[in-house]
This record gives sequence, C-alpha cells and structure tokens, in this order.
Amino acid sequence: MAATPTPTPDTYPPTPRTTATRPRGRMSYARADIQHILDETYLSHVGFVADGEPQVLPTLHVRIDETVYLHGSTGSRLPLAARSGGVPLCLAVTVLDGLVLARAQAEHSANYRSVVVHGTATLVTDPERKQAVLAALLDKLVPGRAATTRPPTRRELAQTAVLALPLVEASLRRRTGGPTDDPADLALPTWAGVIPVRTSYGPPEPAPGVTVPAPDLATD
Amino acid sequence: MAATPTPTPDTYPPTPRTTATRPRGRMSYARADIQHILDETYLSHVGFVADGEPQVLPTLHVRIDETVYLHGSTGSRLPLAARSGGVPLCLAVTVLDGLVLARAQAEHSANYRSVVVHGTATLVTDPERKQAVLAALLDKLVPGRAATTRPPTRRELAQTAVLALPLVEASLRRRTGGPTDDPADLALPTWAGVIPVRTSYGPPEPAPGVTVPAPDLATD
Repeated sequence: MAATPTPTPDTYPPTPRTTATRPRGRMSYARADIQHILDETYLSHVGFVADGEPQVLPTLHVRIDETVYLHGSTGSRLPLAARSGGVPLCLAVTVLDGLVLARAQAEHSANYRSVVVHGTATLVTDPERKQAVLAALLDKLVPGRAATTRPPTRRELAQTAVLALPLVEASLRRRTGGPTDDPADLALPTWAGVIPVRTSYGPPEPAPGVTVPAPDLATD
Repeated sequence: MAATPTPTPDTYPPTPRTTATRPRGRMSYARADIQHILDETYLSHVGFVADGEPQVLPTLHVRIDETVYLHGSTGSRLPLAARSGGVPLCLAVTVLDGLVLARAQAEHSANYRSVVVHGTATLVTDPERKQAVLAALLDKLVPGRAATTRPPTRRELAQTAVLALPLVEASLRRRTGGPTDDPADLALPTWAGVIPVRTSYGPPEPAPGVTVPAPDLATD
C-alpha cells in the first residue's frame, strides 16, 4: 500500500473506505472538484445495508455547504432505515463523459467522474430546514424556481423525507483522455479515440393549461 | 402489504427485496422492459457490503441472455470480494428521462426508469467466456467493434475481472408523465411540465495518428 495523501483544507481526508485498491492514480480528494460534480448532477445512487444485504436506490440530491441532502418519500426504505439514529450509507454520483475506443479490445475504457461519499445519514425533522432543502433542490433544477412555486404545506412537508449526509469522507475517481494502446498496436487499421457522451435538455413539454413561457435552461 | 403480482414467463418474480414499500404503482417486473433498459445503458452502480458497510461503485455492464456481466480490474474491491464463492450485490441502472416541474414545490419530481437486480455475482474464470463477454461489451458500445479490434492476450484477459450476475431477481421502477398538481394550484401563474433530459454523443475525437473514419453512432 502506498502512503495516502495528506489532507489539506482543499481536500477531504482519505480513509480506507475512500482509498481505491487500484488504479490509485485516478483518485482525488479535491474539495472543489467533488463539490462541483455534486452540484452539476441531479441523480445519485445511494447504497445501504438492509438485513445484511446490499441495497441501492436512485435519488435526487442537493449540496448545501458541507452536507449532501437526499430526497425521498417518507414511506420508502431509506428514510425508514434512518429513523433510529441514522443509517450508514454510501452515495455515488457518476458522470459518464465519453466512450474510449482503443485498437486493442482490452484497452477500451470509459471517461468518467465519480464521486463517492461515505457516512451516516440522519433524517431532517425540522420543517423549516426541510423546506430550505427542498427550495435548494428546486433552485438547483431551475434557478429561481422556489420563488415562483407554491411552498409546501405542513402536511406536504411531513410526507417528504429529507436525509442529511455530512460531506466528510468523500473521494473522486476519474478517467480522462484518449486510449492508451501499446505501441505495437498503433498501426492497426481501426479507429481509436473518444466518443464524448453529453447530457442535454430537450424542448420543454408544458402541462395542459400552462400559458406562461417555459424556464430557459442551458442545454450544454 | 398488498399482494405482489404473480410471476409469468414475461416477468421476473417479485421478492421482498424487489418490492417497494411505496409508491407501489411505479413498480414493474416486465422482462422485456427490464432487458431493454439494461441494453440501452452503459453505466451501472453496484452496491455490496464490505466489512459490514455499504459500498457503491460505478461499472460498465452488458447483458447476455439472462446474465448481467460486470467489468472491472482484477485488483479492485468487487472482484476481490467475489473471490470466495461469490459476492451478494445489488445492481442499479437508472435513466433520468426528465425533470418534472409543478406549480407546487412538493409536486416536483423526476421522470426516470430504474432497474435494480439483486443476486450473488461470481467471477468468470474461463478465458473464452471472459473474451466473449468483453466482445459483447464492445459490440454494445459500438456495433461490430469486436471484429475490428485486436483480441485480448492471455495476460490481458488475466488482468480483467468479469463478474456474472444472474438476472433472476430484477425489478423496474419508473415515473412517466407530467406533474400532478392539486386542482387548487392549477391557476398559479408559473410554468409546469416536463423538461426532457437527453443523452447523446458528441463529435468523435480521434487519437493521434488515426486516419480511418470514426464509427457512425446514432445520436438519439
């Protein structure tokens, strides 16, 4: 085992859970990079242990300062598991940036950025904090959205579960760049390179009766 | 608990692990739908338990008949965990189809399709089967790719780990359609509807020295 990097104010501290066995070179603990990926993505996959067995659920997340908040229905498995003092979980957010095609089959790969956060998530019970988290989630989807929509009632807030996961044990794994074929393969007459994968928005589809203009979302 | 649906040849059998506590209406076990989603996606998130704690890793997958194969480096955590007779895991594949904007903050949602597979994954050790899986994975990325690239050597195959997960306990959870605002909110002067989310390919970026044309991938 090589020595793990020393934590700094700009990095999250590496731990055995966030230290890859290999390939180590792709790991990072850079705070700004990790937060950026959490902020640019909506969908995360959260893993937890139920009855000794692994479970993974998709969820929406929003980061506020050094906490990642997860959103769910109060009756779903994860909030139920968190009721008694918190639930240990592993949150993964992955952006697939490109398909890496090589001359050699074994050198094919994917370019990606994947943030993994380990920690114990607790239920947010304070209604005002829940409302603030939901507003932040809406404003993440569409800037300014919370200001133009009806705030939740007490009853609606009670039906929504919000989990808070401290952003303490976090890592980033990524691959960038083209294929790394052996020199002996470079003359093979097959295409090699990267096919970028992009996520964008399609034309907004208004609900029946809506007459005001759709929000203007960047389609990057 | 409502009764779970009866399995048919067209469905995977629901189990306690693949039966949502709520909202039940979004669950399906339709074999064709589940296989279609596994086939149209590259990226999956696999959860497993390590030292009693949840772990989630991104991976690439390919389905062949009723098995999902996962690809990884031999030294990474998951293949190591599978060495002794198999590793119980939970595979999740999620497609985010759209952002659902409602007049009420609490009615905001996402349209998605999420396949979850539970089972015990075993290491594929037979070199010929490993090679067939890798070829299928390449042909999934780019149709015909395996035929135009150099097959792996014995050594390269030995460095690649392939895990086989039987497609037996599988479920699909999805949301489609527009927002479901209360009638009392319909007159609010805010936009409501669906913002479709799309994944597409960017222009291929050839590696240095490549002169043959890039593969023609559909950009749907």
